[in-house]
Amino acid sequence: MTSRKLDEREIIRIFSSTFGIRELDDVATVRFGKKQLVFKADMLVGLTDVPPQMRPWQAARKSIVSVVSDLSAKGARPIACMISLGLPRQVTKEYVDDLAKGFKVAAKEFGVRIVGGDTNEATDLVIDCSMIGTVDKMPTRAGARPGDVVAVSGKFGLAASGLAILMKDAKAEPAFKERAVSSVIEPVPRQKFGSLAKYFSSSIDSSDGLAISLYELASQGGVDIQIDYDAVKAQGVEEFARQNNLSAQDLVFYGGEEYEVVCTIPKPKLARAKLAAKKAGLDLYVIGGVTKGTGNVFVSDRKLENRGYLHFG
Amino acid sequence: MTSRKLDEREIIRIFSSTFGIRELDDVATVRFGKKQLVFKADMLVGLTDVPPQMRPWQAARKSIVSVVSDLSAKGARPIACMISLGLPRQVTKEYVDDLAKGFKVAAKEFGVRIVGGDTNEATDLVIDCSMIGTVDKMPTRAGARPGDVVAVSGKFGLAASGLAILMKDAKAEPAFKERAVSSVIEPVPRQKFGSLAKYFSSSIDSSDGLAISLYELASQGGVDIQIDYDAVKAQGVEEFARQNNLSAQDLVFYGGEEYEVVCTIPKPKLARAKLAAKKAGLDLYVIGGVTKGTGNVFVSDRKLENRGYLHFG
Repeated sequence: MTSRKLDEREIIRIFSSTFGIRELDDVATVRFGKKQLVFKADMLVGLTDVPPQMRPWQAARKSIVSVVSDLSAKGARPIACMISLGLPRQVTKEYVDDLAKGFKVAAKEFGVRIVGGDTNEATDLVIDCSMIGTVDKMPTRAGARPGDVVAVSGKFGLAASGLAILMKDAKAEPAFKERAVSSVIEPVPRQKFGSLAKYFSSSIDSSDGLAISLYELASQGGVDIQIDYDAVKAQGVEEFARQNNLSAQDLVFYGGEEYEVVCTIPKPKLARAKLAAKKAGLDLYVIGGVTKGTGNVFVSDRKLENRGYLHFG
Repeated sequence: MTSRKLDEREIIRIFSSTFGIRELDDVATVRFGKKQLVFKADMLVGLTDVPPQMRPWQAARKSIVSVVSDLSAKGARPIACMISLGLPRQVTKEYVDDLAKGFKVAAKEFGVRIVGGDTNEATDLVIDCSMIGTVDKMPTRAGARPGDVVAVSGKFGLAASGLAILMKDAKAEPAFKERAVSSVIEPVPRQKFGSLAKYFSSSIDSSDGLAISLYELASQGGVDIQIDYDAVKAQGVEEFARQNNLSAQDLVFYGGEEYEVVCTIPKPKLARAKLAAKKAGLDLYVIGGVTKGTGNVFVSDRKLENRGYLHFG
């Protein structure tokens, strides 16, 4: 009998194959009468998801952000959510009040109705947010085709920089520090970007990291993806990396917890997508293209390492 | 600034009032087009919900049982569920395989489709099961009226006895021991009992304990409830209590984790409800009646203490 440790991907694989679902952590669709529901849950754990500088209300808000982000990447609109809580025994009224405030803030910010929940004693803060929503036609992770462009809702590297500032006391210019830390403490999902989903051939939310998200679209689509590094890095990340002797590419590709949408768009639809983005006041950055292939991702002709932001391992 | 400990009821009160929902842990209903969805989540935590004798697959199954039980009390039929997992870092493949097996067993047993989930590292096992379902007309907790009878889907006291056997080495006759331990390790929710919901004026699942469930129906209905103790106690509980110097009434009323349905039925509907139960092969025990009042519960004319099985405090 073996008893080795498992990484998160192996765990996901075991559950996905047991339940007969293609991808455990994607947004699920459920037929309901003539309509289509989406259904998604995401668990936030104090140990791995809440830096010490994050206040309870911000942790509560973040638990909703991550699910809203998943729905946004799929063009789905939230209807209602349930909040299941695990709270340490010594929790105070101030802490619970602050948590409750965070859920209320997020519910208002994202137009989600909190319809119920469950409270429990646990050894650590645990918040599971499950959400239902509606969607017309949902882009999968598997639709990327050669010739499509790869686009994103924002640039990458800020969240990992912010974490390095918070957790490792990395130095930064004040303006960059504020942007980077804010992206960790009060992340903003790209909810309006979901309105562009009808132009996507495939899409994913980037919260597991940009590299793993790109690999997911490439492998599920059975294609290769070519990325232009300069188009993808957030402003100031290179300088921050240099100052702190960090790899800017690591911050950009392997940071995780960045709530952007990564999508592929067929070229004939690109002009319309750009116009729709402009009208809605949304950023839409083309960062690369899709080519024939077997699930690889290249950055400036070098194969990108396929690893991500994993809670396990 | 105060920093005293909170009990679970206070925590529920804070969230319920913040979210503007009447009762945080009831089944929520969401209008979806012309239909009505139910939505419910329940979190199982290793620390408080999983006795050491319970195998991983049984813990996984139990996490689904508790939500199926809530839906059953409301006459709702499950459609799909999401499983969010927190797993300790040192988790083995055998453990994860066994958990996955438990979800599969429960999905088949209760006719639920598992459509997705989320995995995380946590300090303790955490399973949050969120479920959507359908319902025609859902009984609330507030519909009990003077003259109604109080009925249940099964007798009480086995689960608390089983826990005493498992956790405190209480002595028991072999046949009783098997029934009691099995009710803890492999509880069976009263899924078919949901078909009787059209006869209920109010209902609740009893997993927080019989006393707290009765108080919930009494206070939300603005009535008093009179219970016949002899009608409610499971066979063998009195003898077991005597053997182990325990209070049988404590085992019956304050045990919790018993997945029965507690309901009130208007007298004019009782005969039809009994006939429907008989046809479906279901137990339906009348255990008392509803009188005018202000939210109190009496057992043989003595006021029942209003406390339950609470994870906190």
